[in-house]
Amino acid sequence: MSDPAAPPRYRIRIVFGPEEMIGPGKAELLERIANTGSIAAAGREMGMSYKRAWQLVETLNAMFREPLVRSSRGGARGGGAVVTEAGQAVLAEYRALETRAESAGAPHVRRLQAMMREGPEET
Amino acid sequence: MSDPAAPPRYRIRIVFGPEEMIGPGKAELLERIANTGSIAAAGREMGMSYKRAWQLVETLNAMFREPLVRSSRGGARGGGAVVTEAGQAVLAEYRALETRAESAGAPHVRRLQAMMREGPEET
Repeated sequence: MSDPAAPPRYRIRIVFGPEEMIGPGKAELLERIANTGSIAAAGREMGMSYKRAWQLVETLNAMFREPLVRSSRGGARGGGAVVTEAGQAVLAEYRALETRAESAGAPHVRRLQAMMREGPEET
Repeated sequence: MSDPAAPPRYRIRIVFGPEEMIGPGKAELLERIANTGSIAAAGREMGMSYKRAWQLVETLNAMFREPLVRSSRGGARGGGAVVTEAGQAVLAEYRALETRAESAGAPHVRRLQAMMREGPEET
């Protein structure tokens, strides 16, 4: 079922400690919060419960010295959230890490692909 | 709770297609099969059910042109499993990819760490 035209995707998680990790899910959540201005909306776009999205934001804020997301519940516009400068810096480092890791890994991925069955499989 | 002495660990999963991915779990399973000569024992060491370990092996064997693990159920020694040359090649590529990706990502990981809270946290 693999699309030979689609390049492989990397999912890279960095585990700093038992409760401290950053990976594709948290990075995507930060990006979507930055775009929507809302933790709830960002979570919804990812098929995540409101509670889960908040928990991830709290985990991220607890991991770093400065909060990555600042939010206000309630208010005229029903509350909102912004990704702080620290949040943008963390996101940028993670995305840069992905890019560098992917290009470093490319020769190995190509050799793995060369060993794989070709074409779509009927199932 | 992070141990400042412990270097961060990477968990890298390569997604080739909807059913075709390779990551730390499958790599570790291959290694443990090579060491124990048994799919069941390898799975057990990883806290995995017998069924789950077999499913992962079947998935791996279906992904690649040549089987990565050859097994015989039953027999005098109660069956056994070997990691084939193709399996060893896949494992070596994945481990090499990890090493390259980690060293490429290191400057970014250091900058992420510099933004993190320091020292163990009481919780």
